Amino acid sequence: MTKVDIYDTLLRDGTQAEDVNFTVKDKVRLAEAFCDFGIRFIEGGWPGSNPRDIEFFKAIKKSSAPIDSIAAFGSTRRAKRSCETDENLQALLEAEVPNLTIFGKTWDLHVREALKLSPEENLELIHSSVSYLKSKVDRVFYDAEHFFDGYKANREYAIKTLFAAKEAGADCLVLCDTNGGTLPDSLVEIIEDVKKHVGTYPLGIHCHNDSDCAVANSTLAVKHGITQVQGTMNGYGERCGNANLASVIPNLQLKYGFECVPAANLKKLRVLSRLVNELGNLKHNIHQPYVGRSAFAHKGGVHVSAIMKNSRTYEHIEPELVGNTQRVLVSDLSGKSNLIYKAKDFGLDIDSNDPAITGVVEKLKELENKGFQYEGAEASFELLMRKAMGRFEPFFDSLNFRVIDEMRDKSDSTVAEATVMIEVQGETEHTAATGNGPVNALDNAIRKALSRFYPNLNGMTLADYKVRILTTGTGTQALTRVLIESKDDNDTWGTVGVAHNIIEASYQALIDSIEYKLLKDRENAQNT
Amino acid sequence: MTKVDIYDTLLRDGTQAEDVNFTVKDKVRLAEAFCDFGIRFIEGGWPGSNPRDIEFFKAIKKSSAPIDSIAAFGSTRRAKRSCETDENLQALLEAEVPNLTIFGKTWDLHVREALKLSPEENLELIHSSVSYLKSKVDRVFYDAEHFFDGYKANREYAIKTLFAAKEAGADCLVLCDTNGGTLPDSLVEIIEDVKKHVGTYPLGIHCHNDSDCAVANSTLAVKHGITQVQGTMNGYGERCGNANLASVIPNLQLKYGFECVPAANLKKLRVLSRLVNELGNLKHNIHQPYVGRSAFAHKGGVHVSAIMKNSRTYEHIEPELVGNTQRVLVSDLSGKSNLIYKAKDFGLDIDSNDPAITGVVEKLKELENKGFQYEGAEASFELLMRKAMGRFEPFFDSLNFRVIDEMRDKSDSTVAEATVMIEVQGETEHTAATGNGPVNALDNAIRKALSRFYPNLNGMTLADYKVRILTTGTGTQALTRVLIESKDDNDTWGTVGVAHNIIEASYQALIDSIEYKLLKDRENAQNT
Repeated sequence: MTKVDIYDTLLRDGTQAEDVNFTVKDKVRLAEAFCDFGIRFIEGGWPGSNPRDIEFFKAIKKSSAPIDSIAAFGSTRRAKRSCETDENLQALLEAEVPNLTIFGKTWDLHVREALKLSPEENLELIHSSVSYLKSKVDRVFYDAEHFFDGYKANREYAIKTLFAAKEAGADCLVLCDTNGGTLPDSLVEIIEDVKKHVGTYPLGIHCHNDSDCAVANSTLAVKHGITQVQGTMNGYGERCGNANLASVIPNLQLKYGFECVPAANLKKLRVLSRLVNELGNLKHNIHQPYVGRSAFAHKGGVHVSAIMKNSRTYEHIEPELVGNTQRVLVSDLSGKSNLIYKAKDFGLDIDSNDPAITGVVEKLKELENKGFQYEGAEASFELLMRKAMGRFEPFFDSLNFRVIDEMRDKSDSTVAEATVMIEVQGETEHTAATGNGPVNALDNAIRKALSRFYPNLNGMTLADYKVRILTTGTGTQALTRVLIESKDDNDTWGTVGVAHNIIEASYQALIDSIEYKLLKDRENAQNT
Repeated sequence: MTKVDIYDTLLRDGTQAEDVNFTVKDKVRLAEAFCDFGIRFIEGGWPGSNPRDIEFFKAIKKSSAPIDSIAAFGSTRRAKRSCETDENLQALLEAEVPNLTIFGKTWDLHVREALKLSPEENLELIHSSVSYLKSKVDRVFYDAEHFFDGYKANREYAIKTLFAAKEAGADCLVLCDTNGGTLPDSLVEIIEDVKKHVGTYPLGIHCHNDSDCAVANSTLAVKHGITQVQGTMNGYGERCGNANLASVIPNLQLKYGFECVPAANLKKLRVLSRLVNELGNLKHNIHQPYVGRSAFAHKGGVHVSAIMKNSRTYEHIEPELVGNTQRVLVSDLSGKSNLIYKAKDFGLDIDSNDPAITGVVEKLKELENKGFQYEGAEASFELLMRKAMGRFEPFFDSLNFRVIDEMRDKSDSTVAEATVMIEVQGETEHTAATGNGPVNALDNAIRKALSRFYPNLNGMTLADYKVRILTTGTGTQALTRVLIESKDDNDTWGTVGVAHNIIEASYQALIDSIEYKLLKDRENAQNT
């Protein structure tokens, strides 16, 4: 298998995204995880631009990440400095890593308007900077900034800039679509033309996603002879992001047969993608190709009955290859086949001829008519099935609740107070709590009532809360659906509630969420 | 300019995404907006599969959307039925729209394993179904499901299925990458081969995004002669989604010079993209190409100083072309011009030299930091501007409120009761009311307090109520934004409220809604 060098710049270009930030500690942890996964180069930062990045290059040397994988990023020297006195180049050397990546200007517009230099002066900057660094470290990669735009504006000059870096000994000439405006056909054409000029010299690609083509462009570039792919895990980066390596890697490895990471590691892809989000406090994109929670989720009834016969019918790869799994969603678009699949998924041994399943189907229809919906609320669905099949032993019985929201004297902050009465293990608990809003107050009061009996509830938190108004057109009288996502150390689960009263809907979803936690903990205790 | 037919299937394929659901009313509103934008065909649903879609096709006829743009979706007939007795085909005809799209099997694996038919029987299903429908309506589009996978498995048979549809009179043969596994180079190769066989017959493309290449594939397909592009606004769809039309359209129109929508409409793209999310209660993807809030946002210092000299240096297109704007994240220069832009957009008469505008800018920044947002809440924005500029005379003063939600004895229906104290025309009104939920109770109590003084409030009703959780990750403590739509005989207006407490946020939006009604009625009375 032909090898391709994957170069991740999440820790530098990725952090230029509006909502992306990592602590030094997180950056080190991510670098270790990327190395472990088999990514060849990890760009850790731009030591000349901020102190956090300088700290990173100190910390990484005490980590488990092999230093041979770590790269630092910077620009060519300034026009009025020598290489020896240029702060940026010196900061790169002070990072003390064997791989340095520097970017230079390709586009004559930039040379004129941003640098205010002559075209020849710029060529000299590139040559001297690359050559100086190459005399000091193992590898120097040259990022030809705005290569494709520069090529379109002045082809001859753009190619000259590549030659300046090549002649200075750059280990790879990386063609950058900095503004992300290049479409695949012209990208491929330009790569082919560059190859004619530079011959069999190592070329790289660095794409941005402004035309929604970064993954396609990077994938095609390798097919056309590029050997280094720069991108970011999950595609984070300035503006619309960089080429998403979580898509590029499986495209190249599973579909074209290139080796980006050791074959056995590919199944860690999903976990790695989620780690990036967890550390960055970013929401998982459920629709993300290959690694998203919905990437192999089937909702339409036609699809479900087909995949039960043969997964290939609606799945482009086996989800397990990237650490993902097939899922079947239950909704009014789906039929009995979805239900049986789900039951099996929950470990409920159910036969398609079991008379109990008719009861479940009917209960489900009744609830769906009321506005219930179980996409994203699989925990509620499992509880529903177990209850309808008589396979649920209750943990407590909720008797009543009251929530008061009060604003006094035109004050800005409303007070919310909840009281609940719950029967649990023969005792009646009557508790009260305040909260940041009515649902938070209710949540606090329920936990207060139950935690004496079930201390494991302290290990559970609410991760997300969504509200949806179902029947529009009737204003504040409308039916309300609440979705709650909860988590503990091992798991994440969703529950749902539906009522005219938003507080009642929230209460239902909260209760389901707690019942599910208690159920799973009981099952785990029984299995060990 | 060569025209390309854009075909949006958000209302059908889009709703097969795990988290996407629209009410019938929202579907109609979106269809109207798509038509208005200039999308040629809008697929409204699959009438044979669920009652909600049947309702849509009834409702759409009473809307402003021209029926010539509306399409219904379904499958070829079942093997054991004639066209006349096939429920699916009959449901398509009952939709009473001039465009019908039916899908048939291309891939011999599906024919064998899912349909359990012989290859010849499948060809006959396609031919008879297309031919039957074509005798009844203006246009029949044939979706060749799994075309690319089918072609790879059995090229000869895949092409035969196209001929079956072509000979039956299909108006367009749509090549579907149903599983989304096809990469651009093989997609283009296959399209070229198909063209050799079918000649200059109209071809369409329908891509899914499982390899993160749906936009690139759709864009390239048009370059290679495809004339109908099926996709969804914002890319929602089963699993990883469909080709994102909010990227495909500007790619084709701005970069290749095809005409997808009238040139003047393209600048409505961003608003349209946001409308889809607002109605679907879906989070805006800030990094979305072309339309995302970050798509032209510059964070890196190098980038910022360059774009201040020349925007082209780091922007692939002018953001205004798609209704977006440049943003600078380091030093925010956009405040005042943004505001004047918005004010003009809302038709509010404001002079850019008015000294009061500085106060408005500050108030607006403060509120936007708190999570306020005025898309869909123009009435609140107008009130905000008037108040900040001292151009608002209050109608009443709200002093305090209290809402109680109570569930007793495990009953199904929670009771909601609200009390409010409002000062109006020198009197203090203290009223109480119940309601279907806490916000409805509050609404009833406020009206009860005010209607003696302002009987015109009886002519106003709440048309819609939406709740959105702003800061996810903190569960039920999160910040809540409430959007309320109100109407009277002449007008419809939106208001917003933001608070940790959902009841407080609703209260703010309710009060704004009433103040706006009173303001407009006073203005109208003064003008007549």
